[in-house]
Amino acid sequence: MAGADILPEERLRRRIHIHDPLTRNALSEFFGTFMLVFIGLAINMQFILSGEKLNTWIQINLGWGLTIAFCVYACCKTSGGHLNPAVSIAIFTLGKLPAKDCAIYCVVQTIGAFLGAMCSFAIYYDQLLNFAGDHRTIVGPQATAGSFCSFPAAHVTNLTCFFDQVVGTGLLLFFVCVVMDKRIGIPNHAHPFLFGMIVTMIGTCMGMNLGYPINPARDLGPRFFTLFIYGPEVFTYHSYYFWIPVFAPVVGAVAACWIYHLFIGAHIPGDKTEAIVDDSKMSMNKI
Amino acid sequence: MAGADILPEERLRRRIHIHDPLTRNALSEFFGTFMLVFIGLAINMQFILSGEKLNTWIQINLGWGLTIAFCVYACCKTSGGHLNPAVSIAIFTLGKLPAKDCAIYCVVQTIGAFLGAMCSFAIYYDQLLNFAGDHRTIVGPQATAGSFCSFPAAHVTNLTCFFDQVVGTGLLLFFVCVVMDKRIGIPNHAHPFLFGMIVTMIGTCMGMNLGYPINPARDLGPRFFTLFIYGPEVFTYHSYYFWIPVFAPVVGAVAACWIYHLFIGAHIPGDKTEAIVDDSKMSMNKI
Amino acid sequence: MAGADILPEERLRRRIHIHDPLTRNALSEFFGTFMLVFIGLAINMQFILSGEKLNTWIQINLGWGLTIAFCVYACCKTSGGHLNPAVSIAIFTLGKLPAKDCAIYCVVQTIGAFLGAMCSFAIYYDQLLNFAGDHRTIVGPQATAGSFCSFPAAHVTNLTCFFDQVVGTGLLLFFVCVVMDKRIGIPNHAHPFLFGMIVTMIGTCMGMNLGYPINPARDLGPRFFTLFIYGPEVFTYHSYYFWIPVFAPVVGAVAACWIYHLFIGAHIPGDKTEAIVDDSKMSMNKI
Amino acid sequence: MAGADILPEERLRRRIHIHDPLTRNALSEFFGTFMLVFIGLAINMQFILSGEKLNTWIQINLGWGLTIAFCVYACCKTSGGHLNPAVSIAIFTLGKLPAKDCAIYCVVQTIGAFLGAMCSFAIYYDQLLNFAGDHRTIVGPQATAGSFCSFPAAHVTNLTCFFDQVVGTGLLLFFVCVVMDKRIGIPNHAHPFLFGMIVTMIGTCMGMNLGYPINPARDLGPRFFTLFIYGPEVFTYHSYYFWIPVFAPVVGAVAACWIYHLFIGAHIPGDKTEAIVDDSKMSMNKI
Repeated sequence: MAGADILPEERLRRRIHIHDPLTRNALSEFFGTFMLVFIGLAINMQFILSGEKLNTWIQINLGWGLTIAFCVYACCKTSGGHLNPAVSIAIFTLGKLPAKDCAIYCVVQTIGAFLGAMCSFAIYYDQLLNFAGDHRTIVGPQATAGSFCSFPAAHVTNLTCFFDQVVGTGLLLFFVCVVMDKRIGIPNHAHPFLFGMIVTMIGTCMGMNLGYPINPARDLGPRFFTLFIYGPEVFTYHSYYFWIPVFAPVVGAVAACWIYHLFIGAHIPGDKTEAIVDDSKMSMNKI
Repeated sequence: MAGADILPEERLRRRIHIHDPLTRNALSEFFGTFMLVFIGLAINMQFILSGEKLNTWIQINLGWGLTIAFCVYACCKTSGGHLNPAVSIAIFTLGKLPAKDCAIYCVVQTIGAFLGAMCSFAIYYDQLLNFAGDHRTIVGPQATAGSFCSFPAAHVTNLTCFFDQVVGTGLLLFFVCVVMDKRIGIPNHAHPFLFGMIVTMIGTCMGMNLGYPINPARDLGPRFFTLFIYGPEVFTYHSYYFWIPVFAPVVGAVAACWIYHLFIGAHIPGDKTEAIVDDSKMSMNKI
Repeated sequence: MAGADILPEERLRRRIHIHDPLTRNALSEFFGTFMLVFIGLAINMQFILSGEKLNTWIQINLGWGLTIAFCVYACCKTSGGHLNPAVSIAIFTLGKLPAKDCAIYCVVQTIGAFLGAMCSFAIYYDQLLNFAGDHRTIVGPQATAGSFCSFPAAHVTNLTCFFDQVVGTGLLLFFVCVVMDKRIGIPNHAHPFLFGMIVTMIGTCMGMNLGYPINPARDLGPRFFTLFIYGPEVFTYHSYYFWIPVFAPVVGAVAACWIYHLFIGAHIPGDKTEAIVDDSKMSMNKI
Repeated sequence: MAGADILPEERLRRRIHIHDPLTRNALSEFFGTFMLVFIGLAINMQFILSGEKLNTWIQINLGWGLTIAFCVYACCKTSGGHLNPAVSIAIFTLGKLPAKDCAIYCVVQTIGAFLGAMCSFAIYYDQLLNFAGDHRTIVGPQATAGSFCSFPAAHVTNLTCFFDQVVGTGLLLFFVCVVMDKRIGIPNHAHPFLFGMIVTMIGTCMGMNLGYPINPARDLGPRFFTLFIYGPEVFTYHSYYFWIPVFAPVVGAVAACWIYHLFIGAHIPGDKTEAIVDDSKMSMNKI
């Protein structure tokens, strides 16, 4: 670092550095969501395929929270680390993301989630066989589909499911707006860690109905993958429930951003410019 | 941010910004307590209505702690994020909150808590039906009232309940005073997170008698709501226990603030002004 | 704060501020250890008296860790927040605490621990009766003495107990030295939180033999109190085991400090003065 | 500190300070890995030898995470705190560690791990006897070998084991690269804590197949020690599985570093020099 010759990683950088922001950000969102879903589904599988022995719900809550934190750290200086179409669309309505970028983000996030599901399936394939044998089922004692995406219990109506996802994703975006608000004054380097802890919190309060997908890519991407394993029932199950965790999170995310600003954000005293200058040492990132 | 045109959230701010501090702070306390109780009761319900399966006590402790942390982050730059009449009254005795503001805070916090209880009831209504059927009971195997507010076990006397709440809320305020003391020197942006961890700690030590309500609004607001579901027994239960978590926390909160300053705070060496200057980069907030 | 008239807490300060450092620090060590043991034993009781239902070991680990963190925060600017004779004696051997102060610290810490035990007994007296009835026993299914101080199982020899306490307290002081080392460069305001996390870590690795007392005051103070409840067996039990958690922690603490400096601390490159200047904005505290 | 005479630890430093970087760093890596494995195996033993009662998986995850964090804090200003041959080799391929140093690190890390295993065996020897009596077995209800190093279940193929270790160690290094990247801008004093949380996260997602050794020294060092207790089966077990957690982590570690830079790191906008200057207040360390 203090040496005269240049480090290998800097040499690589000079050779492959992508100068186009959209390409760079799309790659980052793709890879970040891939990592998020790969790790997150492996957490779920460690819970389900071990007969709820090697993980319990606290590890699911904490593990997903840390996974969010670290995946957002990875992408925070390129794309901003949305890793979630609901987040991207909410940020778009806040005027901080062009419509075209937003659309591309949503697509690559879903592709990344699909591939993430494939990899977590591969790494725990032996365990799946050991746990469920030839059974590939959505409900029942040897059901494993729930480790990929959400399947509501029979006693939960689709109306409740819809509001559950509106509220769950709403909580996420409400507190993400709090953390990102320059006037609240949280240093930028702490944001991804706090985003993760928000998800941990949501897991302790909004996990009972659906297991808090709160991310259209995280639910739909793996669901496409499960099509090849469990058949078309993954889409028809529970009166075509599958579209709820795709659309409801977007509703909740957009509403929550504006609710935060309506009730609290718009009324915080102080000049913004001043706050930005104060904080500028920490980050040159746009969100 | 560096662009010439103004962001939508700033446009909204210019249109609706509330300039009167009391109105702004009351709105903030109302909404913050609403969020706190909504999330917190959902945590309790996820514990009780899943038969203690989807949450265990560690998640209740950690979930409530994180909920406090993030709700205080949301309100810290407007009202200061008390979200608790006992905190507001203690801060009033410290001379940092006018009596009129304090009274208004207490009222809006309780209203917020009432509405929070309503929303958590709605989101887990299907689960309540599934768990308890038509039973709406305070004690027994299918009791669910405990997810809204505190109901002591028969073997705990009301005298113990009273001291439990004095001590529990006292611990909260003692350490809140530690964290807020400029001479201790904890950066302001870490305060809400540490407040949350204080609550997590209290949950591990003062949770057995009553489940640590330690907040008159958090207990009384939902209790009013349960009146419509479980009937007047929620107030008459255990020899009119209900007034204890309303008054005892105030006693404990005020006493603890002054105990901190008597035993430790007043004796910390160093000039305050100096400390404030040192810290001023972080916050323009009054507490 | 910005007002012309002075705050009540500052008025109190002017009236009662203790100028003598030793008196001030002794008061701080007394009160801090009182709080630590009061909260800590309440954590243990919530575990034992609820039949291991309301707390599990993770809460004991996390709860004790947070308790250490917040009690050290409270005392860090007065006495430094040792709250443990083994820590005080180790700091004495490092030349940072006069012998007289060290002796007084040890005494007041033990008195504080005694009173802490009394208060936690009072707050959970109803629960103790409910759990154990008239039984006041050290071993057996309704044993409760273990919530006050350590009692090894029959299959653990006193030799193992001795080394367990040497190692457990050694781990504490080794990492406390790491965190406090100016050359490591951790900001002062993070030290108490990290001290707490060290204790959480020790609870996960050195908890099986004795439950990690690692603090002579924390073990001996409550043991004196249990004398009145369980009789002299609390001292004679397990071949007069009681002296081991009094003396072994001191051995481990002193050894560990010097082992850290021998193996690592003394070899860190860089000039100390420079590091101190860099860090001086954060703290004026002597440790 | 402000006194005229010099502190004992500074006197020691003047007498024994090692000026040769390689000697100093090798000592640091040796001692840090010794501590890591000593504490880590004690965590495992507290789990296994208590019949999975005093620790559960969440404590294993959190305990190992904190252990990594504090052991890296201890060594971060001397050797950098690799404590893992896979990390050292990956850092070597990044051009930040000479080949000779890397080779020496790997050897002393393994020796440290061997001695760490010996010490944790000693501290829990009574408990081992109590739990397993004369049985010294790798599988079965009284198996204890798994507390030292990894032994896959029969239904997990060695191919899966290989990829599990590639991926597990890959996750570690991927996020270590994220945290260390100057352009991400995380303050240096937070790095060791985040490294620990990465390991906690890995434990929640990659723990089911092998229990996440992800460190050749941590697995091989204790395995040599178990040779004396359980006999040569520790090497022949599961078709000579032992070499997998030695080599696979290196593959994963090196690949992950470059994958991070290929997909994300190389594309982060901004000049590095600028970032370094900005951060230089925090650390003078080479990584």
